[in-house]
Amino acid sequence: MIGPEIKELIQMFAKLPGLGPRSGRRAALHLIKHKESLMKPMLQSLTTAADKIVTCSQCGNLDTQSPCGLCNDPRRDTSIICVIEDVADLWALERTASFKGQYHIIGGTLSALDGIGPEDLRISSLIQRAQNPEVQEVILALSATVDGQTTAHYIADALSHANVQITALANGVPIGGELDYLDDGTISTALNARSIIDKAS
Amino acid sequence: MIGPEIKELIQMFAKLPGLGPRSGRRAALHLIKHKESLMKPMLQSLTTAADKIVTCSQCGNLDTQSPCGLCNDPRRDTSIICVIEDVADLWALERTASFKGQYHIIGGTLSALDGIGPEDLRISSLIQRAQNPEVQEVILALSATVDGQTTAHYIADALSHANVQITALANGVPIGGELDYLDDGTISTALNARSIIDKAS
Repeated sequence: MIGPEIKELIQMFAKLPGLGPRSGRRAALHLIKHKESLMKPMLQSLTTAADKIVTCSQCGNLDTQSPCGLCNDPRRDTSIICVIEDVADLWALERTASFKGQYHIIGGTLSALDGIGPEDLRISSLIQRAQNPEVQEVILALSATVDGQTTAHYIADALSHANVQITALANGVPIGGELDYLDDGTISTALNARSIIDKAS
Repeated sequence: MIGPEIKELIQMFAKLPGLGPRSGRRAALHLIKHKESLMKPMLQSLTTAADKIVTCSQCGNLDTQSPCGLCNDPRRDTSIICVIEDVADLWALERTASFKGQYHIIGGTLSALDGIGPEDLRISSLIQRAQNPEVQEVILALSATVDGQTTAHYIADALSHANVQITALANGVPIGGELDYLDDGTISTALNARSIIDKAS
């Protein structure tokens, strides 16, 4: 017999991605047991986030201001726009610290099955941004899945009239990857896109 | 570049049991994206839980009242007390709906390594409850681990002067278990505690 208040909290946690009823129970119980050290700080964080976080009107990032900190950052190269699916992808790219341009989050991929068409994604605003003469390159950093590549082709097509270079992430063997564990598609892609290490003299 | 508000929220979630930095990020992002449908209800649930949930002074359960709903329930058999380690164990037992007595949560197990002695657990209040002439049986439903069994022996010893029957959960092959996947200890315990199905005539 779990009280309705605790049950509700468990159900909330069980709905989070990666959690289920069992881990939801564990998380809720852990919070209730550590009311002062965990639950109240989490309440505070959630309240702040609910109040302050907004979607950037330019790139679609989540931040406390719009345009977001990345769009406003004068150190970032405004001539390159990296097109990604989701905020999580932006975080992943930022962790690598190897990209210093700007982002554009389209919010997913085209999907006939899920009924997601171009008008459901932030593609028209991307085309508009690409018209800016300052922009010279658009990198399509979308998933290497059928839906991701369909979306990439659609965007490349839509941008064909803008005066920008369109590029895509390289496909191949991931760093640390062993051939034995890779799928056939990755191996044949890597083979076809092989690079010259030492030219025959 | 993740803003400090989002970073803090991610760190909060990453501290929950079963979650780490990656799943913490996923959970936080999911909440921020579903502000109205998930984040605000969760805020509400957490606020209610933080305000209302207390520890039952009698059994140690978590509820909005003390004594808790289980201790106050007139339909529950007050002659049997089931001793468990944690609130999660109470929830597990209640899900089976096969126990209709009362509970006593001791809050863990004795552990020399972690420096947990009898005074750190709710054992003295259990001995006091067992003195009540109404109580006839104390079930020790503790983990079948070294620490759990040490604790069970300690409690059985401490209750030896109270006029109650002391029982423990059965050990053996779990329902649905295959012998091939069980450890030697479980198999030999199950073998020694075998039951007669049909008497030789």
